[in-house]
Amino acid sequence: MKVKVYNLLEKVRLQKPVVHHLTNWVTIYDCANIVKVFGASPVMAHAAEEVADMAKIASSLVLNIGTLTVDFVNSMKIAAKSANEKGIPVVLDVCGAGATALRDNKCFELLDEVKINIIKGNASEIAKVSGENVQTKGVDASAVDRNLIDIAKSLAKKRSCTVVITGKEDIVADTEKVYIVRNGVSMMTNIVGTGCIATSVIGAFAAVEDNLALAASCGLCCYEIAAEIASKSANGPGTFKEALYDAIYNLDKKNVTKMQKIEVK
Amino acid sequence: MKVKVYNLLEKVRLQKPVVHHLTNWVTIYDCANIVKVFGASPVMAHAAEEVADMAKIASSLVLNIGTLTVDFVNSMKIAAKSANEKGIPVVLDVCGAGATALRDNKCFELLDEVKINIIKGNASEIAKVSGENVQTKGVDASAVDRNLIDIAKSLAKKRSCTVVITGKEDIVADTEKVYIVRNGVSMMTNIVGTGCIATSVIGAFAAVEDNLALAASCGLCCYEIAAEIASKSANGPGTFKEALYDAIYNLDKKNVTKMQKIEVK
Amino acid sequence: MKVKVYNLLEKVRLQKPVVHHLTNWVTIYDCANIVKVFGASPVMAHAAEEVADMAKIASSLVLNIGTLTVDFVNSMKIAAKSANEKGIPVVLDVCGAGATALRDNKCFELLDEVKINIIKGNASEIAKVSGENVQTKGVDASAVDRNLIDIAKSLAKKRSCTVVITGKEDIVADTEKVYIVRNGVSMMTNIVGTGCIATSVIGAFAAVEDNLALAASCGLCCYEIAAEIASKSANGPGTFKEALYDAIYNLDKKNVTKMQKIEVK
Repeated sequence: MKVKVYNLLEKVRLQKPVVHHLTNWVTIYDCANIVKVFGASPVMAHAAEEVADMAKIASSLVLNIGTLTVDFVNSMKIAAKSANEKGIPVVLDVCGAGATALRDNKCFELLDEVKINIIKGNASEIAKVSGENVQTKGVDASAVDRNLIDIAKSLAKKRSCTVVITGKEDIVADTEKVYIVRNGVSMMTNIVGTGCIATSVIGAFAAVEDNLALAASCGLCCYEIAAEIASKSANGPGTFKEALYDAIYNLDKKNVTKMQKIEVK
Repeated sequence: MKVKVYNLLEKVRLQKPVVHHLTNWVTIYDCANIVKVFGASPVMAHAAEEVADMAKIASSLVLNIGTLTVDFVNSMKIAAKSANEKGIPVVLDVCGAGATALRDNKCFELLDEVKINIIKGNASEIAKVSGENVQTKGVDASAVDRNLIDIAKSLAKKRSCTVVITGKEDIVADTEKVYIVRNGVSMMTNIVGTGCIATSVIGAFAAVEDNLALAASCGLCCYEIAAEIASKSANGPGTFKEALYDAIYNLDKKNVTKMQKIEVK
Repeated sequence: MKVKVYNLLEKVRLQKPVVHHLTNWVTIYDCANIVKVFGASPVMAHAAEEVADMAKIASSLVLNIGTLTVDFVNSMKIAAKSANEKGIPVVLDVCGAGATALRDNKCFELLDEVKINIIKGNASEIAKVSGENVQTKGVDASAVDRNLIDIAKSLAKKRSCTVVITGKEDIVADTEKVYIVRNGVSMMTNIVGTGCIATSVIGAFAAVEDNLALAASCGLCCYEIAAEIASKSANGPGTFKEALYDAIYNLDKKNVTKMQKIEVK
């Protein structure tokens, strides 16, 4: 059965959900802007005194530890508890997990102390969070030995959540199914933040669909179809990025349905 | 009498005033870059230990609470007191007012403890700061019932300041006059930060003109004329944003004078 | 003897060094993205608890005081000590030196307490750090009286380091030689962050070449050649910036070798 990717995009555009972010200072603008261009409503707020209130008016919560500090992670916990109470999905980008002890410890604290509904990272980051022994080189992906689908499924089961591993092929696993998204283009690896903004897209789609693995897969699929379209007119990473925003804005039923490459296992 | 919009733009370009910002982490680059592209000189500094000194070498001060914290607002107060002493205008963007108690409380603290010369927000934010009972959905504008011009005039009188309400039509009121700016284009609502950068533009114009309502109106008018020009060549929000910077840089007497839509009441 | 500029660019692209940054919140995205587009791997991390670990997996460290706070500079010191121990080069952008007492004091603390291998700034910033009596107007360059080459050489000797003064002509001095880079284009002065991203480029090149003055000169030369190429197709600062990223990505042996303007004294 073909996944109805465009239907979910349409839901995001119609419902315009508020997506509350506590994200990193590098890609914060692009995290917000991607959500906006998809038709949803981003809000960024991290003060410990207001994050619980802000999460209460949101439809999903995106956490990204890219430029974490101890205080910032404390605000994440407060926001996540509020989101858990309200029953909205919480997405965690374990950006840079494996690079330092602080990152690893804070990832595990978040996973243990609040309910994370979607864990997202590249292969080495997710392997680290799963308990695999790997070393991340900066925030770039590196290969890991064990079968990635097994790692995703096992972590999804262990944490009762959805797990997203981004890469040339994206793997999205929950306790029942595995989605493989085969859209995307290599030009995405030449700009900073493609991983972070993927997480924000997942947050926007998770805000309008209870099946979180389906939401994450469809979000990634739309984003990567737009990247494929953008790469055709780009002369390099600069024009690619602008064309990406245009392409997302102009996605329609025809090109999404024709270009989508999602396999459900 | 026709407002001499281009004259003020020329003053900004010739005087290149330093505009000191304490703004949010989402749009901070664009706040700085818009000021630069208009020909002025942005400086961003927020450490409590230096903001008073930095305000002393500036010609205006822009405060934006988008990603506020308690410490950050304390730095704002120090900077604003220094600006007040020097006699340079202080612009406050009440970004997200109405969304959380922290935001509302900090807005009122700023308005009560330092002199704010220009208060700027969208309809629901300004209504909140005026004492109207509204709820902001994220940082996006929402309609409010009471007549917006009345709200602006009443707040301007209450706080002895200039009030700017941005929207499809921008309202700028001081205790004597009301300016309506009818430039702009709907594509502006598809990218993040158009409100924040409008505030920074107002800061740049307020730095070179004592009549602050006139300064704010002319700044908005130039910015929105550029947006109209940019939207003509754009394929979507990505190319629109780049074209916007080009259009601001290339604004000249002919197109500004021909395209300006300011009504003075 | 002609400087082999392209050789160093090729080394950056092949070795893909990790460049650890503690930089400012205004241009942090562009600092990361420029490093990425040059083919290296940026990582931004500033928590006191992890900066020493992160510096240990990097090949160079870039410090930029643009939006400094006391805590942030403390993290810089921890990161720099770790970098010093590992023996990787530390680049310091003395952004805004001369503007406030805090900036000047923190620059001198950094220079006195850790080993800085490359000090980089515009004319007035470097003059300030050298002990000259000047006043910075925001972060924009202003002329200084004394011969800039003498200032650079004298500071290089005093601090046993490499000194970079950016401007219409860039001066790079160590204790033995002076390089003058004459590439670049005036459009660079119309966008925010050209100075910050120059520093990040220097960080990427210093990661792959022990002769730090040579590394800095070649990095600046490549970056400015790309700016020259980009300016030809740009309609203003918006399209210029996107074209700049494209041009860096597309730099090849032919155009670099043909366009390079480096003089060695």
